[in-house]
Amino acid sequence: MYPDPTTVTRVCSIGAGPIGGGWTAHFLARGYDVTAYIHSLAEVPALMSVIDTAWISLTALGLAPGAARDRLRITTDLADAVKDAQFIQESAPERLDIKQALYRQLGELVSPDVVIASSTSGLMMTQIQALCPTPQRTVIGHPFNPPYLLPLVEVVGGKTTEQAAVDWAVAFYTVAGKAPLAMKKEIPGFVATRLQEALWREALHMVANGEATPDDIDNALMNGPAARLMVQGQCMAFHVACGEGGMATNLDQFGPALKWPWTRLEAPELTQDLRDRMVDGCNEIAAGRHFEELAAKRDREIVAVTRALRDARSA
Amino acid sequence: MYPDPTTVTRVCSIGAGPIGGGWTAHFLARGYDVTAYIHSLAEVPALMSVIDTAWISLTALGLAPGAARDRLRITTDLADAVKDAQFIQESAPERLDIKQALYRQLGELVSPDVVIASSTSGLMMTQIQALCPTPQRTVIGHPFNPPYLLPLVEVVGGKTTEQAAVDWAVAFYTVAGKAPLAMKKEIPGFVATRLQEALWREALHMVANGEATPDDIDNALMNGPAARLMVQGQCMAFHVACGEGGMATNLDQFGPALKWPWTRLEAPELTQDLRDRMVDGCNEIAAGRHFEELAAKRDREIVAVTRALRDARSA
Repeated sequence: MYPDPTTVTRVCSIGAGPIGGGWTAHFLARGYDVTAYIHSLAEVPALMSVIDTAWISLTALGLAPGAARDRLRITTDLADAVKDAQFIQESAPERLDIKQALYRQLGELVSPDVVIASSTSGLMMTQIQALCPTPQRTVIGHPFNPPYLLPLVEVVGGKTTEQAAVDWAVAFYTVAGKAPLAMKKEIPGFVATRLQEALWREALHMVANGEATPDDIDNALMNGPAARLMVQGQCMAFHVACGEGGMATNLDQFGPALKWPWTRLEAPELTQDLRDRMVDGCNEIAAGRHFEELAAKRDREIVAVTRALRDARSA
Repeated sequence: MYPDPTTVTRVCSIGAGPIGGGWTAHFLARGYDVTAYIHSLAEVPALMSVIDTAWISLTALGLAPGAARDRLRITTDLADAVKDAQFIQESAPERLDIKQALYRQLGELVSPDVVIASSTSGLMMTQIQALCPTPQRTVIGHPFNPPYLLPLVEVVGGKTTEQAAVDWAVAFYTVAGKAPLAMKKEIPGFVATRLQEALWREALHMVANGEATPDDIDNALMNGPAARLMVQGQCMAFHVACGEGGMATNLDQFGPALKWPWTRLEAPELTQDLRDRMVDGCNEIAAGRHFEELAAKRDREIVAVTRALRDARSA
């Protein structure tokens, strides 16, 4: 029913803000014909400004063959915007009433074999698709800001989304140069934003209590975990740091510390089941590689990004 | 009373594990004479292995003039280890009884004008220094793993530490090529580990609830916020993403969303005082630079680290 993702050449990007414009720039850089739907022609300068900015970075990272900014068409006519599109990325304002009205229209205008993805960071697809006559092909495709630079796209459907649409979106985003994450459940905040939100709430608590300033928070993150998180997520960071014992050692040794009054986040019960899921999950990621190999890879990559940042700042 | 930090040439590093060995390698790479105190000669191979591994990265990042691995001396005699040291970095096992006994000895053996810093991640200096006869010069100097690569060192004193010792440690770590963070208060977990712990608890909740796997968590972090966190902390990420309005817009617009049931961390009350501290803090970091300038810098630097990581992985 859905087309082969590798045959897609024409996409529609809805929205003229930093997210919509960022998506437009990304798709142009990956060699697609892009139609941008905007609410009013008054938004053209803002949209072009986002694309101008993004293009500098996208060019530096390397454009796809045939990629060109003049493959962009802008329209304020929704029917015209979507008529040839093989994929639609929606980045309308974060208001449920606006999104529901939009998906009601899109559900009629857009052929049901075209997947429609929403960039929303705060709404659930089950809510957004509620008034859409053809909701089975509507999914969340949540990027991270700036969307033309950070590869993550979190993908999940609503109650009436069909699994094939989620699978298609994951395959398409991969072809289109992103790093999609297919979520297991529809939860508010998805995965990355929930993690960021946990960190953010703790940061606000520390500032509220006079324990740190915003500058302290930022320096702690930039000079601490950031470089390692680029090359190794938190699970593998602990897995590799614990040597032979890996995540099992981490949880068995430091598990009790979870109950300490660090952070204002209530700790989960470290059940045998949770322990096993963490340990098994890390072993799957390691895929038989010894921790020393993983640590050496981590170090090579931290060196590379550290040198690159130093060079960029001294240039 | 304390020596000029730029005149320090001899340091003592206590501990043969990944943290103690990592510090030893770091100080050698920065051109210091280092005496490593280890508990037993049986630990020599482990210590040398850590240094061997670290040296690869430290060489790639650039050694200080005169830096050499043969400027390392290893001893199992504590009095001999500390006798000429102008600074002591302690990375003994994370047990309060061991640390207290050690600081009792160090407090007698080490001249009071020498600062002693503990790498502890879980204990407080007020506890560690309790039996030390000269506690005024004992501080926390908590690195991030791996300590030879990540620049952050969190510095804070205990109840009987004098401020001059904290100030000296901050100055010395800066001279020694680290990025010290002088903490406002002695709190468990310091700043960076608390932030990491908030994120980690939320990650464990998600895995426990079947909302994400460890692989999902790691991919979300690596492909999402990590590259941005390398070049911009979370406060400035929000400040710059909100354009002209900056952090004020972020808090005034998204503040209510803090109360949403995202994450299991109870949100702080967003009082006027907290709002102002966040806004003022971000404006101080921005130091008059326009958000577009900051966003362009962010983008240049994300491009640089992204290219570097891609190159490192394809090499």
